[in-house]
Amino acid sequence: MTTHELLQNFLNLHKDEKDAKFAVVSSGGTAVPLEKNCVRFIDNFSNGTRGAISAEKFLEKGYLVIFFYRHNSLQPYSHRFNDLFFQLVPGENGTFTAPDCPTLTDFIQRHRKYASRMVLIPFSTFHDYMNDLEHICREISFLKRRLCLYLAAAVSDFYIEHEKLPEHKIASNGAGLDLKLTIAPKVIRGIVKNVVPDAFIVSFKLETNPELLVKKATRALEEYGHQVVVANMLKTRKRRVTFITPSSDPLPIDLDSPEFKDRPDVEIEEVVVEKIEQLHSKYCVNK
Amino acid sequence: MTTHELLQNFLNLHKDEKDAKFAVVSSGGTAVPLEKNCVRFIDNFSNGTRGAISAEKFLEKGYLVIFFYRHNSLQPYSHRFNDLFFQLVPGENGTFTAPDCPTLTDFIQRHRKYASRMVLIPFSTFHDYMNDLEHICREISFLKRRLCLYLAAAVSDFYIEHEKLPEHKIASNGAGLDLKLTIAPKVIRGIVKNVVPDAFIVSFKLETNPELLVKKATRALEEYGHQVVVANMLKTRKRRVTFITPSSDPLPIDLDSPEFKDRPDVEIEEVVVEKIEQLHSKYCVNK
Repeated sequence: MTTHELLQNFLNLHKDEKDAKFAVVSSGGTAVPLEKNCVRFIDNFSNGTRGAISAEKFLEKGYLVIFFYRHNSLQPYSHRFNDLFFQLVPGENGTFTAPDCPTLTDFIQRHRKYASRMVLIPFSTFHDYMNDLEHICREISFLKRRLCLYLAAAVSDFYIEHEKLPEHKIASNGAGLDLKLTIAPKVIRGIVKNVVPDAFIVSFKLETNPELLVKKATRALEEYGHQVVVANMLKTRKRRVTFITPSSDPLPIDLDSPEFKDRPDVEIEEVVVEKIEQLHSKYCVNK
Repeated sequence: MTTHELLQNFLNLHKDEKDAKFAVVSSGGTAVPLEKNCVRFIDNFSNGTRGAISAEKFLEKGYLVIFFYRHNSLQPYSHRFNDLFFQLVPGENGTFTAPDCPTLTDFIQRHRKYASRMVLIPFSTFHDYMNDLEHICREISFLKRRLCLYLAAAVSDFYIEHEKLPEHKIASNGAGLDLKLTIAPKVIRGIVKNVVPDAFIVSFKLETNPELLVKKATRALEEYGHQVVVANMLKTRKRRVTFITPSSDPLPIDLDSPEFKDRPDVEIEEVVVEKIEQLHSKYCVNK
């Protein structure tokens, strides 16, 4: 099915839920091909864990979820059991047990409970991502403030324009390879301004240099005019993030702070989605 | 465990099998980091299907297998069931069934049968691949002609030397990005000449341009002085390959030719490994 068909089926299935909030969760990295017949590509470090867990939390908060993810990256619920083949023990009559996965039944049941409230739309390249995200947003712009865009995908900042790509696999019988990459258009800019100006939009900023993090996240917010940047560092991203919003001071969330001493197993995405849901609810009321 | 420990445990476990043939199967693509704190990297198109199926076939032919694979790429047997989470149906008493996977029990049992005859050694970057493959070969060079190196990994032809990498994630606030890549050293060259000169060595050549394929494959064989190049095209690689050897004409294997009309479900890796096993057996006799 095309992106259009997947989306229309999903919207049609839920057309009577006039007050439902929707989250578009983008997840995984975008590939930038180096050849038209693509053998090589530039990729971004991202398994899609953040997007996959976040989508679960949106579902559990009552959202309808459009999960827009890199083909073959992690998916909600299933990502917790990546080596199932090695865990299953064949028993009688074609049955299996999974003694080392005590939560497996629970997560299969959660997935079943929410499966019809989520549509999975895959992308691979930066071009797919850019075109299909805009397409999705156009088709759901009627949701206005009920829509939350949660842009957790690791989108390339650079790309090579299609007409400049060589046709075939680059030969290695030369002196080396000079790649000239162009700055990629910021997909979010046009979407905020022209496509879903009423939506509640959350972007993510990943850095490795702590000195630049808050500064760059704040600048992103000013540039695109959206609602929240979630800033995080590559090495600490599973324990600590900082919310940057236009009207408040930066708000750090740190799972190692006393605030979370009663929730030792909480995943940071759960806390992030809790905060986003609160902010989005306020935003819906203030229309 | 380190590569060294994994390998030594495996060799120790099988030290009494004085006549056993060993296959080192390399599989998956190598990542070339663009930053020291790696967020971005150049990757090669490869899921590792060819390596994973080939390793199964070597095991079934009696080989001891060192499966040297890109971290998170496909593994023997399990790769056939990538969406198991969505296939399992919870039943009574913590059991599951998988009604849409009729071959699951069979493949779990095959995996169990052969698990102790295979060691899995992961790599991620081009540097890991280069260093660890040489390390593995040094430790098993005593096998001499009993060793088959089956180099199915998609190894980068280009890389950026570590000292030239920027420390942090490349900023995108400039005019674009010029990447200067150096031709990567051909790992196979040093290994053939200096490390395992007696081994039976099979390399793979993937191209997208049919006019260059046999020519480039033949040149690779002349340059490195090894035994077989398996040449294949990106688009037809699951149905057709060509064996290039020093002493015979190119030998095409085409699953759509009359030769295979009685084996409609055969996987091309099975046929490739059958041929390699025959050639390797002859090579072992001619010592």
